[in-house]
Amino acid sequence: METKEAPNEITRRQFLTTVGKIGGGAAVFSVMGTLGLLSPETLKAAEYEPPGMNDLKHSNRNGKKVVILGAGVAGMTAAYELGLAGYDCTILEARTRSGGRVWSVRKGTANTEVGGTKQIARFDNGMYFNAGPMRIPQFHVTMEYIRKFGVPIEPFNNVNDHAYYYNENVGELSSQKIRKRAAKADVRGYVSEMMAKAVNLQALDLPLTPEEKEKLVEYLRAEGGLDKDLFYKGTSRGGYKDEPGSGLDAGVLRDPFSMKAIINSGFGNFLSSEYSYDQQMMMFHPIGGMDAVSNAFESRLKGKIQFNAEVTEIKQSNNSVTVEYKDLVTGKMKQAMGDFCICTIPLTVLKSIKADFSPEMKSAIDSVGYASAGKIGLQFKRRFWEEDEQIYGGNSLTNMDISSIYYPPTRYNDKKGLLLGYYNFGANADKLGAMTYQQREAHALTQGAKIHPQYYKEFEASFSVDWKKIKYNLGGWVSYTGDQRQTIYPTLCKPDRNVYLAGEHMSYITAWQAGAIESAREVVTAIHQRVMQS
Amino acid sequence: METKEAPNEITRRQFLTTVGKIGGGAAVFSVMGTLGLLSPETLKAAEYEPPGMNDLKHSNRNGKKVVILGAGVAGMTAAYELGLAGYDCTILEARTRSGGRVWSVRKGTANTEVGGTKQIARFDNGMYFNAGPMRIPQFHVTMEYIRKFGVPIEPFNNVNDHAYYYNENVGELSSQKIRKRAAKADVRGYVSEMMAKAVNLQALDLPLTPEEKEKLVEYLRAEGGLDKDLFYKGTSRGGYKDEPGSGLDAGVLRDPFSMKAIINSGFGNFLSSEYSYDQQMMMFHPIGGMDAVSNAFESRLKGKIQFNAEVTEIKQSNNSVTVEYKDLVTGKMKQAMGDFCICTIPLTVLKSIKADFSPEMKSAIDSVGYASAGKIGLQFKRRFWEEDEQIYGGNSLTNMDISSIYYPPTRYNDKKGLLLGYYNFGANADKLGAMTYQQREAHALTQGAKIHPQYYKEFEASFSVDWKKIKYNLGGWVSYTGDQRQTIYPTLCKPDRNVYLAGEHMSYITAWQAGAIESAREVVTAIHQRVMQS
Repeated sequence: METKEAPNEITRRQFLTTVGKIGGGAAVFSVMGTLGLLSPETLKAAEYEPPGMNDLKHSNRNGKKVVILGAGVAGMTAAYELGLAGYDCTILEARTRSGGRVWSVRKGTANTEVGGTKQIARFDNGMYFNAGPMRIPQFHVTMEYIRKFGVPIEPFNNVNDHAYYYNENVGELSSQKIRKRAAKADVRGYVSEMMAKAVNLQALDLPLTPEEKEKLVEYLRAEGGLDKDLFYKGTSRGGYKDEPGSGLDAGVLRDPFSMKAIINSGFGNFLSSEYSYDQQMMMFHPIGGMDAVSNAFESRLKGKIQFNAEVTEIKQSNNSVTVEYKDLVTGKMKQAMGDFCICTIPLTVLKSIKADFSPEMKSAIDSVGYASAGKIGLQFKRRFWEEDEQIYGGNSLTNMDISSIYYPPTRYNDKKGLLLGYYNFGANADKLGAMTYQQREAHALTQGAKIHPQYYKEFEASFSVDWKKIKYNLGGWVSYTGDQRQTIYPTLCKPDRNVYLAGEHMSYITAWQAGAIESAREVVTAIHQRVMQS
Repeated sequence: METKEAPNEITRRQFLTTVGKIGGGAAVFSVMGTLGLLSPETLKAAEYEPPGMNDLKHSNRNGKKVVILGAGVAGMTAAYELGLAGYDCTILEARTRSGGRVWSVRKGTANTEVGGTKQIARFDNGMYFNAGPMRIPQFHVTMEYIRKFGVPIEPFNNVNDHAYYYNENVGELSSQKIRKRAAKADVRGYVSEMMAKAVNLQALDLPLTPEEKEKLVEYLRAEGGLDKDLFYKGTSRGGYKDEPGSGLDAGVLRDPFSMKAIINSGFGNFLSSEYSYDQQMMMFHPIGGMDAVSNAFESRLKGKIQFNAEVTEIKQSNNSVTVEYKDLVTGKMKQAMGDFCICTIPLTVLKSIKADFSPEMKSAIDSVGYASAGKIGLQFKRRFWEEDEQIYGGNSLTNMDISSIYYPPTRYNDKKGLLLGYYNFGANADKLGAMTYQQREAHALTQGAKIHPQYYKEFEASFSVDWKKIKYNLGGWVSYTGDQRQTIYPTLCKPDRNVYLAGEHMSYITAWQAGAIESAREVVTAIHQRVMQS
């Protein structure tokens, strides 16, 4: 078994780096294949080869300066990785905090939306919600930094069959809160029953042997919970009218909804939201707030982040970049210079900043749209979703404006709790975003109370976010449309002389921290190669 | 909205108890309906009305003694609840620890299986596995005590699409570890495609309107990830050959397996294991070991548990029960007497204890069988499943003897890790159980290494459990067969004069702590009613 063994005296990364130094990337992949480690996720993780820590020193290229715009995850990843290789990095950040869209809202968090008034979070100590990213797929590169930095994590409950579906105007099941398990059992039951009946139809003409058809029927029986005659008549999967208990209490199964009722309810279309590649369980989040990730980066970048620095102009000469910025504390204009600049500013914001980019780059930046996304955190006196309804984390989904309610995946059984009263996108987010904070709160409470009547009695405080109106972001995440990935995106991917764009928008993992990190690492590699070849 | 509001000044339980005292059970249910709290799970939780704390005192019935056999969850629940009402309880427990099948194996845990040698867990500090129950559905009554006792919990990762299916001798996909997401996407994709084609077949004759058929097709498109022509050609749900990344790296989707390959693989039959009522997400477990639950009970029963007390005989006179037991420390025979006895000893063990039960009761006890179940904990130097394969908790399933590998749902990113190398039932459990500890370890490593080649290099220590061979248990959980629920079970449910049986076997929630708790509470209620009516 010798060749199948994984290294343990040194870490995998160290081992593969060593292999890579000796034999190059092809050798790394070959060795990984031999080790049985050849999964696409693993390959992706191994793709990044950080700049050698002594490359600059050994080549007399010390003192290379990089100005980074934005102390979000992309900017800080770049500064962290370049810093390890000896680059002199400065991050300019308009806000007083790092993290960018990584933003955990807690007691005292203040914000003034564009065109809005000031809002202060009046939550209790220890209560928080993540206004931006709130969950991390286990295979994202973000987990690599979490491990490296020792950030404590806990599962993010992205699937909870004990939570509800609630739809209005969908026929018989309108305006009823239905446990997800009930809808799932009925949808899968009826569809499996229909399919089991269809398998042997001549007209369907399945390209399967009789034995394979039997296996398919066996699967459908298991999948749908069908009886011996292949009928769906309800199963315990969907829950009970009367729970089974002790002694003679065998319980009474719920009656399944009718096939017509369940088809018209639209609940079936909710199921696949759990199947998306980056929404599948298990997911994770740092204990205490997503900003544990950005704080871990920030603490490793002491003295390198210039806060309250609002960029006003990006100018390039032959071999350097000058960034003009306003010191928001003193009101004075200042300058930062670098051999290179990494700009992680969202394109919605960047397009209004003066810059001597090429016309193609300018036009590309101008044409990109961003997604609408909104969230509201609602603090309640009591975790009634746990205490009364036994829902520990996860979400309830609805066709109302609020779209979803996310129960806190943390501090279970605590006295108080803070849930997301809505997390919605597109038109729903725009509709809520157009309201005042007070109107949003009222709307979230009115619609949410249809699912949880306890809302009114237990509500304490809210804080809402419309990402299109958040200064320095002006949008949830990039949203390339039509053929923009083929037309303008390649322009954005090329450096404009010595300025490189980075961020989730410069990736195919948009809206995720992983996109920001991967993009930053690509730019780090590109700059380092250019420096070493210069 | 007044009538829709939930109480908050007092707890739900207090409120409902007050309503119950004024208007009785019917009033409670009516009020709960008004509050929108009428779910079966909630009703179940509200069904138990604990004995009034002053009932005994006010009725001059103080000093009632109850002897409880077994300090598992059933016995301790009974002692706890009866104790609150002023009963004088003594628990006789043969072991030196409480918990019964709630058993967290850690460094130093020792065990000698029936007919076997002594085994000592040589795990590192902080490493553990739960040999018995390891997960709790969020709606089980167990959570009520966890909340009441303030036991810290964390999610139990029961679903993880990044883990594997691995089957041998199943055609084209034999002996390949396949990420669950890939199998799920392909199974759902192909079956949805087939069904979408079948919907409009005359021969199938679905009782649906054209509009409903359209909705069904819309669902199938979403469920299967079908293209516009309703074909399944793979989706990102199943993962990538080359992960998407930053810049121009759009990634390359994996090629779906062929319909025939996936049908023959048998992977489809694994899907529904996640749908069972009591296996659906979210699930939880106490941080640090399931015995946090039993320890919480034990700490509330100071001086009431007599450890090392092996019951040898149960004798009844007119109005009392005498239990003979052997003090395993001194070797002396002793007696405990009570007005009542609650016997939570598993029936496999009870049937060998001398007792003057009625012939019907004796015969019922004798005839009940118990399930086989086995587990092995394997400690590894390195959490390669996290570090190399990005699997954080959850399980991999296989048709090999080991049946499953459970990754630790705790201490993520720790240096070392302890996983379940197998958790199996029935014939597989019997096969492994028949081996020596060393043979089980070798078998678990050999089969597990087919999924994780890192096993050999990283393995450190094991501890295995065959529940059929665990003294004082002699089985995993009760397994009523045929019509036993109709024939002998009602006999078990009736008290034999002053002896009441309790435990998971006295419930329809078998194999779960909730069954033990519900059963204990039913017996507590029955005894209290009898006392108050005497």
